[in-house]
Amino acid sequence: MRKIVLLRHGESLWNQENRFTGWTDIPLTHKGQREATLAAQLIKKSGIQIDATFTSVLVRTIHSLWLVLDELGKQWLPVDRSWRLNERHYGALQGLNKDLAAQQLGEEQVHAWRKSFRAIPPLLKDEPNRLHLDARYKHVALSDLPMGESLEMTIRRMLPYWQHAVIPRIRSGETLLLVGHGNTLRALMMYLGRLDENAVMHLHVPTGIPIIYTMEDNMDVVRHQLLE
Amino acid sequence: MRKIVLLRHGESLWNQENRFTGWTDIPLTHKGQREATLAAQLIKKSGIQIDATFTSVLVRTIHSLWLVLDELGKQWLPVDRSWRLNERHYGALQGLNKDLAAQQLGEEQVHAWRKSFRAIPPLLKDEPNRLHLDARYKHVALSDLPMGESLEMTIRRMLPYWQHAVIPRIRSGETLLLVGHGNTLRALMMYLGRLDENAVMHLHVPTGIPIIYTMEDNMDVVRHQLLE
Repeated sequence: MRKIVLLRHGESLWNQENRFTGWTDIPLTHKGQREATLAAQLIKKSGIQIDATFTSVLVRTIHSLWLVLDELGKQWLPVDRSWRLNERHYGALQGLNKDLAAQQLGEEQVHAWRKSFRAIPPLLKDEPNRLHLDARYKHVALSDLPMGESLEMTIRRMLPYWQHAVIPRIRSGETLLLVGHGNTLRALMMYLGRLDENAVMHLHVPTGIPIIYTMEDNMDVVRHQLLE
Repeated sequence: MRKIVLLRHGESLWNQENRFTGWTDIPLTHKGQREATLAAQLIKKSGIQIDATFTSVLVRTIHSLWLVLDELGKQWLPVDRSWRLNERHYGALQGLNKDLAAQQLGEEQVHAWRKSFRAIPPLLKDEPNRLHLDARYKHVALSDLPMGESLEMTIRRMLPYWQHAVIPRIRSGETLLLVGHGNTLRALMMYLGRLDENAVMHLHVPTGIPIIYTMEDNMDVVRHQLLE
């Protein structure tokens, strides 16, 4: 049996302020830091031994991982990061308060942007050029950098990394820890659980709770389980 | 021109207590943490842009790197770690106070162990078996795990990593940051500067001061410079 632990980063400042974050690089709150440490204690208690780790290139997953590693006493674990594990890009919604957005742009519309599989948020046309100036994205093809993404688009840009960087290590027998984002993990859980578009509307990933996926050797998921 | 930045981790608890540390996994002091942050400020001021980073598998280099990355705002930089970048293994001297060791074992002998190229400290015969139980060394061949090392032995186990993991990235044009240990960096500076055994006796690597090596395309060192 193969195992991967998925963990959503702890609360960020904009989670706390109820703002759309997306690719904006917002740090953890103190509560978010504590959540990461508590998640590590749950992993420790479960007896699971992590062999390698993954994060996005955003500071809220990186700091969450650092706090987990400190608590596990395994700071030396290998880590690989990718922009493909970044949160879903929320386009022109980034920075807006979610309640204000609902008031101004319509509750139903905002709900669709947040929860549905296909709704694309208002795009930021110049965003790829702006992102390309950031050293962490300078090696990414301009045409791969998003202006705003639906959940569907998020899955599509995440899967190549999942298939080429993550799956081979699961196959080789390593137990992995992937620290991700609310919507990227939703996308991944949809893919792993073969959920349909309706089921994913109701899927919510809590911060700071490790989710263990157990897989057959052929990568079929046997079960998933939240650590508590 | 190619560049690599070498940085010795900040002061550890056992640096402060004047004890032989070697592979014992001792954390930074508050002073050591501050040194890492100050080192990052020197790197920032120099205008050098780091593309990728390296540490040993010991927590004092890893935490030093985390502090540097936080100060640079570049937590997302790729990192590779190896046991081959660990501090020189000090064998049975590990844990001893350096002054007490000099009193009990002879000043000249302890000086030779600390500074010379070939002196091997008293060996810990069971050390490879003990280390092998630690998850971070379980993939290392037992015969590669040290019982105690001279500086010469340290260079010999470090060089394969330097040649196979570091040099190709320097050649590809990346500017690297390697956070290492007093004796591993001494060994590396001896190798890079083609220093003889006598010169290396007097080589001391300060904590928290970045050292920039500038190299030709053929990897010949043009100059090295301490940032201040």
